[in-house]
Amino acid sequence: MTVANHFTLLTQDGAARTGVLRTPHGDVRTPAFMPVGTLGAMKGIHWREVRDAGADIVLGNTYHLMLRPGAERIAALGGLQKFTGWNGPMLTDSGGFQVMSLAQLRKINEKAVTFKSHIDGLTIELSPERAIEVQGLLGSDIAMQLDECIRLPAERADIERAMQLSLRWAERCKRAFESAPDGRMLFGIVQGGDVPPLRHASARGLIDIGFHGYAVGGLAVGEPQEVMLAMIDEVAPILPQERPRYLMGVGTPDDMLEAIARGIDMFDCVLPTRNGRHGHVFTRRGPINLRNARHADDPRPLDEESDWPSTRTYSRAYLHHLVRSSETLGAMLLSEINIAYYQSLMQDIRAAIRENRFAAFREKTKAEWARGDIAPR
Amino acid sequence: MTVANHFTLLTQDGAARTGVLRTPHGDVRTPAFMPVGTLGAMKGIHWREVRDAGADIVLGNTYHLMLRPGAERIAALGGLQKFTGWNGPMLTDSGGFQVMSLAQLRKINEKAVTFKSHIDGLTIELSPERAIEVQGLLGSDIAMQLDECIRLPAERADIERAMQLSLRWAERCKRAFESAPDGRMLFGIVQGGDVPPLRHASARGLIDIGFHGYAVGGLAVGEPQEVMLAMIDEVAPILPQERPRYLMGVGTPDDMLEAIARGIDMFDCVLPTRNGRHGHVFTRRGPINLRNARHADDPRPLDEESDWPSTRTYSRAYLHHLVRSSETLGAMLLSEINIAYYQSLMQDIRAAIRENRFAAFREKTKAEWARGDIAPR
Repeated sequence: MTVANHFTLLTQDGAARTGVLRTPHGDVRTPAFMPVGTLGAMKGIHWREVRDAGADIVLGNTYHLMLRPGAERIAALGGLQKFTGWNGPMLTDSGGFQVMSLAQLRKINEKAVTFKSHIDGLTIELSPERAIEVQGLLGSDIAMQLDECIRLPAERADIERAMQLSLRWAERCKRAFESAPDGRMLFGIVQGGDVPPLRHASARGLIDIGFHGYAVGGLAVGEPQEVMLAMIDEVAPILPQERPRYLMGVGTPDDMLEAIARGIDMFDCVLPTRNGRHGHVFTRRGPINLRNARHADDPRPLDEESDWPSTRTYSRAYLHHLVRSSETLGAMLLSEINIAYYQSLMQDIRAAIRENRFAAFREKTKAEWARGDIAPR
Repeated sequence: MTVANHFTLLTQDGAARTGVLRTPHGDVRTPAFMPVGTLGAMKGIHWREVRDAGADIVLGNTYHLMLRPGAERIAALGGLQKFTGWNGPMLTDSGGFQVMSLAQLRKINEKAVTFKSHIDGLTIELSPERAIEVQGLLGSDIAMQLDECIRLPAERADIERAMQLSLRWAERCKRAFESAPDGRMLFGIVQGGDVPPLRHASARGLIDIGFHGYAVGGLAVGEPQEVMLAMIDEVAPILPQERPRYLMGVGTPDDMLEAIARGIDMFDCVLPTRNGRHGHVFTRRGPINLRNARHADDPRPLDEESDWPSTRTYSRAYLHHLVRSSETLGAMLLSEINIAYYQSLMQDIRAAIRENRFAAFREKTKAEWARGDIAPR
């Protein structure tokens, strides 16, 4: 069966691409960064700020939401978009990654992964079919296949076994997804660790099954950046040009710039909010640690040329004070500032690709990051 | 020396009053509720939301701010309004209340109160003169005299000693304040516990010294509401009609309604933000505990007739989920919803007084609270 295509490739500049992905809850401009709203909420950020910052789409975590408040409950309340009030496009992961990293006493076999809930200790079985059912109940615009994601470094035999299982699960997910409402999408996930032939086999197997889009999974799990980029170099050329490509769980601004240069369209990561909660901000001139005492008397904003009001107006001294005093407002402002930076970077990248100057933009942006924080006048 | 008057009494309805207090950072409509931004930040609320909710003035805590980031530092950064970005009217307490409740190893004598900082253990002396100096450095629009506030119940002799000391400190604060820039105000604080003759003596003593406004202190420290209201009944008739009256640290919506009925103009309290952080919201139909399981599947907003978007739009099920999951957004939304409720209550009260229907408004409002939460349809 042919899989409908909701993605339009608009421009290409080298391997970098811009496009638009049409979802039941609205359009997503790519390259896109998806902020992570794990439990149906962004940590420390109002939904209106996520929207204002320029995010078209956010990510929800199936594992967390199926445990609390529960997928059936969210369905009865009208789905995740209505439940949260975000009301825009939403992608949900399959739950597989969190089962591996958070759940206790997990057992994996051909049929499913079984684990104990970290909240109430109940035993829960997550099969490919149930992963699709749960994501359907959540009402996500983009569902992900259930896969087995293993940490690197790992033995080749283990990587291969997990990749093959993920392929078989991909097929079951595809079947389970066939009754999904029109317009919803299912993405397959390329696995294969850091072994190029396994990555190739995984990508080809998924393409044979046929998905709305293709994710590259099992990266950003502890390996060096060059390994991650090398794997994208192996996989991206194989993936269908006309389908969106999503690099899961990535990353730093530099990771994203490099991945986009290799043909990736979508990202998600907790880094902007998590780092914000710890006093770290991303700026045009690289990262800044606001806990550092040098900011205590500094009346300058983080970046007076920023388009984002909080970045342009609040003094470093005030932000430093909030961080050192563990005031919630500090985490709120820095998370918002980081999300806004990520979104403005995506906007600038899309413009550069559209105008066929991505290579120059990439070089200039990296040079600015490397120059470091703006010195006081 | 005559004390300039920046307060204009606009209307009276029984003992209830509306007025406007002109400060260097803008006008304050009274009756006014001042949200508390202890450390130069509202917990879980952006300044823009405080403004949008209708607050004209906020309160900062001298004790906290003098310890971190330090009054001299805030002065060098342009004062508390510029430092925080609030940029509106601000009242600072004198630090005395927090010294009593938070500081370790405090010693009080005629000259000053000496204590160890709860942050770094340094010994700090807070005299009436230093309390005024610190508030001047912070740049607050309304400074409070240093006083000794004791918990109730207490022996009459202790209450009298603290009241007399507070009166002598009031005089020293007045002298220290004489060089303050034009437009800034100093309020005296009526003490005297639950002993009417001591309250009378305190009020008369302060009026003899002469202040821009008069606070009623030492209440809302554990005594029953009727004791608090009885003390207001003793004090308010003595206070000058043409000066603002501020009931410190109060309170619940009912406390405020009753105090306004007795001639109080200003309030501050951490209740809306603290309760919000614990899942408790104030509504037109009384308080609601969102932790309660009965909200888990309830798609209704807290109050669909509210003017405040978050009160009108987010479902109880979503707010319940956020509270139960300890998501920051839950505390953020409920704090904002509570501050907005407090401000809308003040706005409605001001309108009722202006239109000479405060008694009916008070009765109707209390009846609505007593009816309890709106039942599902």
